Amino acid sequence: MTMKRCIWTQAEAQRKSTYLSLSFGRRRYFPSALSSLLFFLQMEVDREEEQEQVVTPWEVAAKGDGKIDYDKLITKFGCQKLDHSLIDRVQRLTGQLPHVFLRRGVFFAHREFDQILNAYEKGDKFYLYTGRGPSSESLHLGHLIPFLFTKYLQDAFKVPLVIQLTDDEKSIWKNITVEESKRLARENAKDIIACGFDVNRTFIFSDFGYMGGAFYENVVRVAKCVSFNQVRGIFGFDNESNIGKIGFPPVQAVPSFPSSFPHLFPGESKLRCLIPCAIDQDPYFRMTRDVAPRIGYDKPALIESLFFPALQGEAGKMSAGDPNSAIYLTDSDKMIRNKVNKHAFSGGQDSQENHRKYGANLEVDIPVKYLSFFLEDDADLEHIKQEYGAGRMLTGQVKSRLIEVLTALVTRHREARSKVTDEVVDAFMAVRPLPWMFD
Amino acid sequence: MTMKRCIWTQAEAQRKSTYLSLSFGRRRYFPSALSSLLFFLQMEVDREEEQEQVVTPWEVAAKGDGKIDYDKLITKFGCQKLDHSLIDRVQRLTGQLPHVFLRRGVFFAHREFDQILNAYEKGDKFYLYTGRGPSSESLHLGHLIPFLFTKYLQDAFKVPLVIQLTDDEKSIWKNITVEESKRLARENAKDIIACGFDVNRTFIFSDFGYMGGAFYENVVRVAKCVSFNQVRGIFGFDNESNIGKIGFPPVQAVPSFPSSFPHLFPGESKLRCLIPCAIDQDPYFRMTRDVAPRIGYDKPALIESLFFPALQGEAGKMSAGDPNSAIYLTDSDKMIRNKVNKHAFSGGQDSQENHRKYGANLEVDIPVKYLSFFLEDDADLEHIKQEYGAGRMLTGQVKSRLIEVLTALVTRHREARSKVTDEVVDAFMAVRPLPWMFD
Repeated sequence: MTMKRCIWTQAEAQRKSTYLSLSFGRRRYFPSALSSLLFFLQMEVDREEEQEQVVTPWEVAAKGDGKIDYDKLITKFGCQKLDHSLIDRVQRLTGQLPHVFLRRGVFFAHREFDQILNAYEKGDKFYLYTGRGPSSESLHLGHLIPFLFTKYLQDAFKVPLVIQLTDDEKSIWKNITVEESKRLARENAKDIIACGFDVNRTFIFSDFGYMGGAFYENVVRVAKCVSFNQVRGIFGFDNESNIGKIGFPPVQAVPSFPSSFPHLFPGESKLRCLIPCAIDQDPYFRMTRDVAPRIGYDKPALIESLFFPALQGEAGKMSAGDPNSAIYLTDSDKMIRNKVNKHAFSGGQDSQENHRKYGANLEVDIPVKYLSFFLEDDADLEHIKQEYGAGRMLTGQVKSRLIEVLTALVTRHREARSKVTDEVVDAFMAVRPLPWMFD
Repeated sequence: MTMKRCIWTQAEAQRKSTYLSLSFGRRRYFPSALSSLLFFLQMEVDREEEQEQVVTPWEVAAKGDGKIDYDKLITKFGCQKLDHSLIDRVQRLTGQLPHVFLRRGVFFAHREFDQILNAYEKGDKFYLYTGRGPSSESLHLGHLIPFLFTKYLQDAFKVPLVIQLTDDEKSIWKNITVEESKRLARENAKDIIACGFDVNRTFIFSDFGYMGGAFYENVVRVAKCVSFNQVRGIFGFDNESNIGKIGFPPVQAVPSFPSSFPHLFPGESKLRCLIPCAIDQDPYFRMTRDVAPRIGYDKPALIESLFFPALQGEAGKMSAGDPNSAIYLTDSDKMIRNKVNKHAFSGGQDSQENHRKYGANLEVDIPVKYLSFFLEDDADLEHIKQEYGAGRMLTGQVKSRLIEVLTALVTRHREARSKVTDEVVDAFMAVRPLPWMFD
């Protein structure tokens, strides 16, 4: 159920119940009760109609065939498809080849990214905001996607960046203590920094560390504008949800507003914000964009990615409970080799003979999908897809190429991370001005 | 509806609906919907039974006769009556006459105040916590009650005190901006300081100023333990309530825990907290006491006061919309005189003749009630009550005595407040250790 439909439904139910209460209204609070009942019945109907994919920040479930229908998601969420004309504009404005994730449609949807480019063209800057919920010790490849892309945007556009570590959220949702959540936030910060962010243009903060002051003031401003009914519709909360969950969405909303960072953007209330994120985070920013004009702020723009598939295939789930479902940045070369060889779902045929005859099914082949995320050379990738798809290249050869690419990536990451000392983390997380952030 | 009954009702509804869903359960989420419906119906029945007094932090409404039934409130909330043996113990332990508000039953209920005294007797200290929602520029007499009493407790027991100004709450509930709410908090702090608190033992903070760090960590710990259903039952929130309201109760809860003030109580996780407040704040601390053991903290103790009556009588309401309903600390001598003479509800008879014959009805007489709050001399008060009750003293004489007492109080306050400079406010509100706070 989309938010729009939800709001419509609630309003509709309210009208109906008001009518009913006029007919046999006995008490003044009858309308709201009837409204709830009708709203519930309408939700039943909606669920019936849409027993399909569910995408929220905490649940991604595809329908029967296990594949997320991204076009449907775009319609449902009300965002726009990121088309080639926008990608061409990025190339023109930055004077460099757009990132692999843009060229290959990994970042495939947006909200007002065109406006960010319009403004940039006129000489107006913006800032980037992305984040992570620190729920695990080590990150997997999927976690890297938004950060690799954000680093590219930072370098290409020369703009400042804020990175939120929602240690409070993870402590509320997962059963982990405040202390453990804070520790994980710092550990994850090291992996993020290892992606190569520029300390002169990057402020990393954890909610437990940064909550307060102007940031908390904005949290209150947003929270005043959002009802329980709304977060129930947007995030799927229910009456048994704890009030930590119910109160959290404004905390993820407010980094979208420059006034939440007075040390970075003093007096710059009109600086636009661009949020690169996976599309499951869209509900937070739909809410944020609804509220922004009501409190006198600009709506943040978004650029949103697909989900990174599990090794077992797109229908599978990368889960901390199954270490073989994902490649972790802490995996050894041997583990990467084993995981890819044993667990990466192959679109190749069951016998070499059939493979030569029919070729691989690239639509479901995980090694090819992973290569399309991480193999930078377009010609190289195209060649592999052609040869493999035609059956001239075997699964083993493609896997072997992927192992090479991933091992190089993970090795590079491991080396970069080993250089991220506690002092480096402190430097990124210090609440400080960034005087050269637009240079 | 008491919290206990509410929780019971919800559990009961859940049982009933589970049964129903077994009979004609079509869908897995049917039980929760039926549960909501049954819960609502049960609430209807409860309301029917108890169309009586409502006491929440935002609404105090008596039943038909306009008088709050405090005994019923004690039973409903589940607190204890503050009896004479406890007041005698206070006298013994502090070596001084208990405060007028104790002697005359203004503070009339408690939770575990006896345990605070037991511990104090053994040499264990405690700390005091009280607060104010800064919703108006100037305070009236009723607002002073908890502060005057808290100052007495601080002096008598030589203990530290934290005072919370819930500027965030007022910005959420009332339609005032964050900036205005912060300004009012500082203005109110001046009135509070003027009550004579000791800067060496008192930390005043506003939520907008102090939120963050260990305080926010405790907010999250509490919020994780409380569901929407619970705050709905305790505070009367509904589905249209904004999530700022729903998320607020933990903010008022956590000053009950010493770990929320690491600059005051480093490592002192076992220091008990005593909260002097009006009984309408009890719901916050019922919730706090429920949660405390679940997160490894001690429950705060409470000592709770009656409500201060409006000039128009106990059935009236002191409201900012009607300046004649209350005496403000900014009222001039002339205004006090006029308000008492013109608006203070009198229990005297309609003619002097009848008055001499029947005497005044002290039960409803506001001048006598006000004197019982603010006239310190017990013998003097007793004399007035006897003479006035017997008809030998006239309303005009009692009012005149009250004007004298209130004018002195307000003058003293005005003078004290004029000495509270911004520097003094800063000193009280500085986040600092209080090394001599137990001396």
